[in-house]
Amino acid sequence: MDSAELLDILGNENRRRILRLLSRRPCYVTEISEYLGVSPKAVIDHLRKLEDAGLIESRTDDQRRKYFSISRNLRLEVSVSPYEFGMKSAYPASANLDVSRWRYLSLNVQLDAEETDETNETDADDDEERTEAEDGAEDDETVEQATGLAEELDELQQLQRELSLAQRWVHGRIADVQNRLGDALDGEDESRLHAEVLSAVAGGGSSVGEISRAVEAPEHVVDACLSELADGGFVERDEDGEWSLAEK
Amino acid sequence: MDSAELLDILGNENRRRILRLLSRRPCYVTEISEYLGVSPKAVIDHLRKLEDAGLIESRTDDQRRKYFSISRNLRLEVSVSPYEFGMKSAYPASANLDVSRWRYLSLNVQLDAEETDETNETDADDDEERTEAEDGAEDDETVEQATGLAEELDELQQLQRELSLAQRWVHGRIADVQNRLGDALDGEDESRLHAEVLSAVAGGGSSVGEISRAVEAPEHVVDACLSELADGGFVERDEDGEWSLAEK
Repeated sequence: MDSAELLDILGNENRRRILRLLSRRPCYVTEISEYLGVSPKAVIDHLRKLEDAGLIESRTDDQRRKYFSISRNLRLEVSVSPYEFGMKSAYPASANLDVSRWRYLSLNVQLDAEETDETNETDADDDEERTEAEDGAEDDETVEQATGLAEELDELQQLQRELSLAQRWVHGRIADVQNRLGDALDGEDESRLHAEVLSAVAGGGSSVGEISRAVEAPEHVVDACLSELADGGFVERDEDGEWSLAEK
Repeated sequence: MDSAELLDILGNENRRRILRLLSRRPCYVTEISEYLGVSPKAVIDHLRKLEDAGLIESRTDDQRRKYFSISRNLRLEVSVSPYEFGMKSAYPASANLDVSRWRYLSLNVQLDAEETDETNETDADDDEERTEAEDGAEDDETVEQATGLAEELDELQQLQRELSLAQRWVHGRIADVQNRLGDALDGEDESRLHAEVLSAVAGGGSSVGEISRAVEAPEHVVDACLSELADGGFVERDEDGEWSLAEK
């Protein structure tokens, strides 16, 4: 689903309240209607939009009553600054993603989840025996597993908060650098595009096509911009027509 | 501004298009109206909402014509999963934030921005002299400053992409652990709250009040939940009534 569609869906208070309710537990239409104080007809309308967007799904219980739950993991990020309006929505990255090999970022978390998972599977045979244990106190293994997972969850949530703070810090730094770069390039209206183009060249974009894709502007506009930057001595073109930052 | 208000504002395509336009350059109402193909009256209405939310601001030019630009740096994050519907909006974190002391995260970037800033200020006296330099080629110092900033910008943007990917990875890991924790706690409807409470205890919440705030549920509900978790042997209470995970 694209970010625009997601923002249209989330830009309605009752739909947000439905999602919050369903994140606590699956619900019937009548429950949602009572909780929101909104007619079942209006609830069904919101549920249909959420279902069409793939955010929720419905099942039927033993009495053939339909109930709804959230079906999808999804993240949406929106950044607003004088130089940028960006939206991005994405599904969770794979658990197998190699998080140890980033260039600018290191995560200091225990990555033992996979092993725990395997332990669960080899233990599957004991499951029935275990559920027949006396009511009340669980056996030691269940307790150990649950408290281990609770600790892992807490650690991941703290990492999530740090990542969020880091994003805010980077967002502020980027706006600041864009601002100073705009000033250095004379503060004209067009200097924002000049700043973006210069940054794309710094990032390794060397052909007009690559730079044009990086800044999302037409090639003839980028071409004119590169010529002006070259006149100013900021960038230079080699014999093959590849652009790079001017040698200091 | 709170996240709900921000989502209401962003849940309109024309307002999003206005923000995208203004992030490229400040504009007059007539320009925006032509660009969007929407009547000036409707544009003024959208601009008023954006201005009331503090996202944009207006100035008047020499001919006393009003023009608009984005006034604010802001980030919005929304997470959706079967266990969570969270929204968070925040201003950029201070540039002085000590990013080297996080527990779960390290950022591997050059943090020389402050120094560059100071250099600029001490150089302020030379500014007039410099702007009188011949048209076309800029002096070496300006070029060096601009290309340095462009490199810094590119590095920060790469870090931003890594942070975003890291967020998606953590989001997936959290949903996975919540899922397994829910299973370990017997998979009842109420197990989601049990899982949250257990994770809050793991995170150091020891009084009912603290835990209740962490999971955003009323104290009597949390109290009942803790009793059930204690019956299962997952948590225990000491003489002072403080809760902790059960000793393994």
